[in-house]
Amino acid sequence: MIERLGIIGCGLMGGSVALALRRAGLVRHVAGFSRSQASSRRALELGVIDEACASAADAVRGADIVLLSVPVASTFEVLASLRAELGPEALCMDVGSTKRDVVAAARAALGPDIAAFVPAHPIAGKERAGVDAADADLYRDRRVILTPLEETDPERTRRARAVWESVGAVVSDMSPEDHDRAFAAVSHLPHLLAFAYVASVARQPQGERMLQFAGPGFRDFTRIAGGEPAMWRDILLANRDEVLAQAASFRHVLGEIERAMLASDAQALMDQIAQPSALRSRWEMGAAMGALAGGAASRPAAADEAA
Amino acid sequence: MIERLGIIGCGLMGGSVALALRRAGLVRHVAGFSRSQASSRRALELGVIDEACASAADAVRGADIVLLSVPVASTFEVLASLRAELGPEALCMDVGSTKRDVVAAARAALGPDIAAFVPAHPIAGKERAGVDAADADLYRDRRVILTPLEETDPERTRRARAVWESVGAVVSDMSPEDHDRAFAAVSHLPHLLAFAYVASVARQPQGERMLQFAGPGFRDFTRIAGGEPAMWRDILLANRDEVLAQAASFRHVLGEIERAMLASDAQALMDQIAQPSALRSRWEMGAAMGALAGGAASRPAAADEAA
Repeated sequence: MIERLGIIGCGLMGGSVALALRRAGLVRHVAGFSRSQASSRRALELGVIDEACASAADAVRGADIVLLSVPVASTFEVLASLRAELGPEALCMDVGSTKRDVVAAARAALGPDIAAFVPAHPIAGKERAGVDAADADLYRDRRVILTPLEETDPERTRRARAVWESVGAVVSDMSPEDHDRAFAAVSHLPHLLAFAYVASVARQPQGERMLQFAGPGFRDFTRIAGGEPAMWRDILLANRDEVLAQAASFRHVLGEIERAMLASDAQALMDQIAQPSALRSRWEMGAAMGALAGGAASRPAAADEAA
Repeated sequence: MIERLGIIGCGLMGGSVALALRRAGLVRHVAGFSRSQASSRRALELGVIDEACASAADAVRGADIVLLSVPVASTFEVLASLRAELGPEALCMDVGSTKRDVVAAARAALGPDIAAFVPAHPIAGKERAGVDAADADLYRDRRVILTPLEETDPERTRRARAVWESVGAVVSDMSPEDHDRAFAAVSHLPHLLAFAYVASVARQPQGERMLQFAGPGFRDFTRIAGGEPAMWRDILLANRDEVLAQAASFRHVLGEIERAMLASDAQALMDQIAQPSALRSRWEMGAAMGALAGGAASRPAAADEAA
């Protein structure tokens, strides 16, 4: 039983953890703080938190578990402001989409108290942000990546895993570096491409008119371009080097396909697109991939061995 | 009432038209031909067609309406093979995703009978192809673009519009050139980018492992990369010049965003991604766009005036 959960940032991510733990009867008291008073007041109204605190430190005081759900760029400042109130047994986690920058900020802010910090990245979200969208089922069957550090207390890592599993998630461990490389590839680059693509159409003289004819393919391909710009600006900057490396790899493949088109080389074009088509048809969210086109060996268990 | 509908290519698109017209009580007899006997036999079993014909010409003989639902690259060959059987009042339509190449093939194959041909592109589809996926509701509230030619008999165009409206679609007219430019932007380029992106991740040494961590954003962004490669090869080649022009425009915007990231210029990056984010949040499938970011004037009615 969690006697007191401290949520810093009463939005979709933190609110959904609170609702899920509450529904499972695993938390006695939820204290919340948001920089915007309106958010913590709304969280209180919705029954997501029991107490709207005046500061992060107030929310953390006496908490067994502290969940940081703030923009990754604020990590240092917020952790520094609450460090003095972290209890000797407290577990502190974040929910950020990048991990190397969060780890660096946490090390700088927490000093030796970094032992209490288990960096976490739940792979879940919604189109709408904010506590009104909070949902006890947000993490059900979704992956959560933990990136514990050398300094992290293994008992805290065990408790972190248990918390996420208790809200229905499937937990994996990775190093922060492996995490940021993988998410540059499977999440940050797609967002970058979707932003660039929508901007590229919109800036054309006939852009608006053409968008009237866009169908379900466009709808799904560009859904992530509707992401919150400030959050994505921070993620793209925090993970800049990995994202730019992924973008360079993408440009290279795009160039190969363009060259096949330019040469009207139907066979070369087929070779280029048959592989991703087959792979994507086989891919399932959350499932280990079997052997893919190209004959690479299957590595289904690698994810949990990566830490 | 359509006395006889001739479907050339008994798959998802043609089968869905047949089912919708049948359900509405608007067709007496559906004759179908597929190059693969298994497809037309299956269409017969499913009640999508009433008669499986041995040739396209047999299916067309006596038909009021002929619907071509074959790979665009086969348009010339199929139209040439059935031209002699086209009745004096028959309306002939296709369902291809590109229009300039279809129009050129139709002109070459039909000669003066081109008057009977109304090029059509229904903006609808499913992840699964084939007649088993045919669905009487496939076209409900979906757009259908007609690109009638100078030579097209206006009465045929009127009938074509009525057929698509009777299966629930919203019909617009455009020139084949405007069509191909718009669909290069809103459909063909996204497919090209999705193929290139999935290939770029898959070809990395850790690609398979990284794909295990991909979430809902990846799922939606890459759904179209699962498209049928032979069909997309043909579309990308048929509309090559427009697609490559769109790709160049995309690369330019991508380069601007990469430069803002490389310079760690948070404001420039925000400027680049806030516009597409706002636009995509406002976009709705099938709706006319209002004034977008950038102050361009609204042109809600332009679509139907474009022909």
